[in-house]
This record gives sequence, structure tokens and C-alpha cells, in this order.
Amino acid sequence: MLANDTLLRALRREPTPHVPVWLMRQAGRYLPEYTALRARAGSFMALATDPSLAAEVTLQPLARFPLDAAILFSDILTVPDAMGLGLSFAEGEGPRFARRTDDERSINALTVPDPARLRYVFDAVREIKRALAGRVPLIGFAGSPFTLACYMIEGRGSADFAKVRRMAFARPELLERLVGVNADAVAQYLQEQVRAGADALMLFDTWGGLLSPSAYRRFSLAPMRTILARMPPGVPTIVFTKGAAASLPAIVDSGAACVGLDWTADLSAARRQFGERVAFQGNLDPLALLTDAASIERAAVELVAAAGPAPGYVFNVGHGIVPATPPDNVAALVQAVHAASHRGRRPTADAAAGEAVEVDEGG
Amino acid sequence: MLANDTLLRALRREPTPHVPVWLMRQAGRYLPEYTALRARAGSFMALATDPSLAAEVTLQPLARFPLDAAILFSDILTVPDAMGLGLSFAEGEGPRFARRTDDERSINALTVPDPARLRYVFDAVREIKRALAGRVPLIGFAGSPFTLACYMIEGRGSADFAKVRRMAFARPELLERLVGVNADAVAQYLQEQVRAGADALMLFDTWGGLLSPSAYRRFSLAPMRTILARMPPGVPTIVFTKGAAASLPAIVDSGAACVGLDWTADLSAARRQFGERVAFQGNLDPLALLTDAASIERAAVELVAAAGPAPGYVFNVGHGIVPATPPDNVAALVQAVHAASHRGRRPTADAAAGEAVEVDEGG
Repeated sequence: MLANDTLLRALRREPTPHVPVWLMRQAGRYLPEYTALRARAGSFMALATDPSLAAEVTLQPLARFPLDAAILFSDILTVPDAMGLGLSFAEGEGPRFARRTDDERSINALTVPDPARLRYVFDAVREIKRALAGRVPLIGFAGSPFTLACYMIEGRGSADFAKVRRMAFARPELLERLVGVNADAVAQYLQEQVRAGADALMLFDTWGGLLSPSAYRRFSLAPMRTILARMPPGVPTIVFTKGAAASLPAIVDSGAACVGLDWTADLSAARRQFGERVAFQGNLDPLALLTDAASIERAAVELVAAAGPAPGYVFNVGHGIVPATPPDNVAALVQAVHAASHRGRRPTADAAAGEAVEVDEGG
Repeated sequence: MLANDTLLRALRREPTPHVPVWLMRQAGRYLPEYTALRARAGSFMALATDPSLAAEVTLQPLARFPLDAAILFSDILTVPDAMGLGLSFAEGEGPRFARRTDDERSINALTVPDPARLRYVFDAVREIKRALAGRVPLIGFAGSPFTLACYMIEGRGSADFAKVRRMAFARPELLERLVGVNADAVAQYLQEQVRAGADALMLFDTWGGLLSPSAYRRFSLAPMRTILARMPPGVPTIVFTKGAAASLPAIVDSGAACVGLDWTADLSAARRQFGERVAFQGNLDPLALLTDAASIERAAVELVAAAGPAPGYVFNVGHGIVPATPPDNVAALVQAVHAASHRGRRPTADAAAGEAVEVDEGG
């Protein structure tokens, strides 16, 4: 039903005519049309909670670049906000909750939120699907239970999340209870996104990499497994933990179709070791996009080569695009990935001719 | 010649009566006697550049805790300071250079500094060795060529070292030249520390983990290899890159006797895979020291068990002790490691009796 289903096929490790590419934070502050819309809306939350504005923002990068997927414009903290914790974004600062969830009482009081409180997200998914009209798939997403817990415990972002890391040693059973409630809430949230039309799902585990490998397995990977096991069959899933290279073998067994890698992970080694079990997504350093077209093309070619020709690879940055990124550099990147992946899949053909023809490698 | 040479033996993967333990930043702001001395000296640099004050600070933690090594009190940025870049530490901020080294001209102008400009460090090493009187070994150290380059390029610390990461893509040959000069300077610096009496050496690569694995090998690991190849035989070396779990197989081949692991690395897997080729050092989350004696003991026992009984293990934190750490918690940790390692090496003996007897496992 999709005109371009390369993302879904790559996530299922099926052959694709080219390497699909999308970019974390592809809709965002580096685009002047985003900045303009946000200024009109007044705030980030005003944008994110208005389904038609969220849809408009989601579609903005697709109007500029031939990306192979759209991703819902939203925030990872919508779920704890719906739990009643009072999310706000002060200008020039990060997110902040009105209340911290950092002790027995506040953690025991948490419950899975009524989906009606997140209806603006599901409405946005429906509106985006209508606007996409089958061009490319839409990725729904949520923050991981542990990453949500990080913000809930500290009440805001933190340079080192010291309270969370202390709790992992001093009150492990309490932290486990918190991520358990979050897992139930996130599972329900993602199921609703699928009902509204999301074609694939991603778990953003921004802070799981702060933990030791044994703590990561217990407090971050275990609740993500719980969620992944409850996702509807046929909807491919991506799990992305930043900074968890040491836990890659365990993440490969999480139940996700695809493992997202940050830019410090070894894509080539991961594909060689685990490429027959899961798809991989990643992992260009987003700061490469602050250079120039020639450097970006060189980096893209190197990364596509490192991924190798086997099915099951999705090109992405290894962390979100930064606001200072020139949009023309994103255009250069998307073009370079598509061109390099055509060449890579037709090693004997003339490179220029290769770009004009779509050929699957054997699957 | 040393009363307690467990560290040196562990670095050489020889059997030891207990797991040796020392702690990154064991001399530092968490100790009231350090804070008092620094207040009297007036500044961090006044402490670090006065050999007898540096010696006094180095010895402070050994007066409190039965640590198995001393580490020179100094800063990783002494080398670029000696290159004439004008290092200073503003109160409440990090280090800062008077000049940035971020273009062709400034990088080409760099030369290996005259060792006389670093004589205060070598004098401190001599004074510490005299004061130690053979009780435990003294670890000398330097910042890695890439980590020095990070501060030299930015002119100071940075949340993301964006200029450095951009340079790795846009001007790779220029960055390579910079880390090359740094490697020559650091090699000479460490050779002089050995001449002054250092018993072991450590390279602190705080920021190598910011790079992709291929960039890490080129800009951080390659110059560290150059240094390690020039170290005098018989002086064991430790290389510590924070956040480079994906590059562990390459680090194991660096030529260092021991690989330091940060707290997000998998000590158990590293020992199983590479424990017959190098020693490992690490890797407790330093924030575990902000909890309580029981939690600290549990964490220490778990980590010593994860390391396993084979020779070649040095207990340490996975990053520096933080200023808020209660000294009593450090005492609890050192005691717990020594006790757990006695028990671990006598699995059939009564645990209490085991603590009183020193027994080597077969080597």
C-alpha cells in the first residue's frame, strides 16, 4: 500500500532497491520553516499537542528531502505528562516536571494513564497518515521506561543523572517498580499509535547507556523487552540505546526487529556479528553535518560500505540532528546515501548508471 | 623493593594475595584535608606546580585508606601548558587555554616542549617516591594525545567538543598532525616520569569515546600506540579510554599491559574474552560511593565476582571519585574489595578465616 516501503523492508531484513534513510530529529530547529511555525504556535508543547500542527511539522522535512520515512513529531515525555507530572519546557532550557517521582510514595502513586489524555498524539498520527497518503511509512515512538524514569526522578534533565544512578545501587527494587509502571504505560501508548496508523515503532533509550551493563539489563532492557513482547505482530520495532555498545549482544536479543546504533558503536562489527538476527540502523556522527558537502559524501560512502551489502540496514545519524545544521547539508547527505547504496549494490556496474537503476541483491 | 607490589603484579597478570585497589581522583576534593591545602595554596595550579605540595596531596588518601597504589597528583593538561598555550583554571570552571590550537598555523607552530618546563612534575615524582619509602608503587600519568587535542582545539572543556568532531570529518590530516605532536610530547613526558621514579604509567583518554570507532583508531588509539611502544620495558602501562566499549578489541592490542574500563563497560565479558592477553582495571560507577556502606559492599562483591579469580585484575572506579563522596564510603569500599577478593580466592575456606590469610591461586 506504500509507494516507498524500503524502510519496512529493511527493518524486516528483506532486500531493498536502495538503503533507506531517515534522520533522528529530521523535523526540528535546523529547519527555518519549523522555527517559524514554532514561533507562531508560541511553544514547543503548543506545537506537539495540536494534531494538525504536529502533522505539519512532521511533513516539513519530507517536502525538502527524499527521505524514506516520516517520524511522528512529539516528545518522549508525553507519557509521564499524561501520568499527571506536569511537563513544561522553559525557553532555552530542557523539559521540567512540576513534581519529582523519586521516593516510595510518589512511585507507588503512579498509574498507567488513561489513553484519552494522549489522544492528541493518536490524532496527530491519523492526520499525518492522511497527509502522507501512502508515500512513505510513519514511525511512531516512545521514550524507554528507564529514560522516562531518569527525567521523572530528577524532575528535569541532568548532566549526570546522579540521583538515578544512586538509586540503582541503593534502592534497586524501587527503581524496578518505577520502570515497570512506565513499561505498562509505554506499551499501551505504542499499541494506540499502531491503531491510529503507525507503520513501525521506535523506543528511544537516551540514557540507558549511563548504567553499568548489569544495571542496564535490569532497569532498561528488561522493561523494553516487556514492551516489545506486547507489540502487534507485523509492526517492525527499533530499539535505540545511546552509549550501550557493551550491551549489544543483549540488545540484539531484546525482541526488536532493528537495533539503532549511536555514532560511537561499530556498525561494521555489529553487522558482521549479528546481521543475520536483526536489522541495524545508524550511525553517522550528527556533527558531520556541520562540515561541507564533500566531507559529508565521504562519510556517507564510508558508512554505507561499513554496513555492507546484506539486507537489513537503515541509514541514520547516531544521535539527533543539531540545530546548527545547514539544511543543504542534509540534502547532500540523503543524496549521497541513496547514490552510494545504488553503487554498493551494483559493484560491477558503472557508478553513474547504477544510480538510475534499482536492483535488489539476492535475498 | 616494594612492601606492597600487588598492583604491579596484577598489571603483569601475576597472582596476587588480594585484588589491588586504587581509585581515580583518590587525592582530591572529597577529602577535607585536600580542600584545606588547596585553600592555603590559593589555586589548583599552585598545588600542582609545587613539588612538595603535590607530594603531600598525593599521600593524603594513603594516610586514610589501605590503598595499593599512589598516583601522582597533577593535571592532564601540563603538557600543552608546557607547549606555551597558557593553562589556567578559573574558580568554579574547568581548565582554559589562553590560545586555541585549531588551525593550520597554530598546529604547525607546536613543538615538543623542553622537559625543563615540566621539571616541577618530575621533582614531585621524586619527592613522592621518597615519602612513600617503598610502601606501594607510584603511578605516573599523562593525558592521551587526542584528549589533549580536544582541550587545545576548543581552548577549554566542552559539552560536546563539536569543533573537534567536525575537524575529524573536515580536516582529518590536520587533526592527525596535532595528535602526532602530542604523542611525541607525551612519550617524552612519561619517559621522564619513569626516570624520576614512577613505577607504572597510565594514559587518560577521557574523550576518545566521543569518536566513531574508525576515527578513534586513527586519532586516539594510533598515537597512544606510538607512546606505548616507546615506554621502557619493565614499567607496566594502563590505557583508559572512557566510553570506548565498541573499540575494546583494538584497545587490547594497543601494547598496554592493562586496559582501564569505565563503569558502562562489561568487565566480566572483557575478562572472559581478553583476560589472557591483558590485565583489566575498573569499573565501579563512582556514584555508588554516594550511597551507604551496605550498598557499596554489595556492589564491590558483585564486581570482584564479575572479574573472576584469574590474575590480572585491578579494582578501581570507572571514572573519577566525585567531590560529594563521603570519605567513610571510600574506606568501606577499600575494605570490601580486599575482603571480597580474599574470599573469592579461597572459595572452599570459611569467609571470615579467609580474610586473615593471604593465598595465591595457581599462576
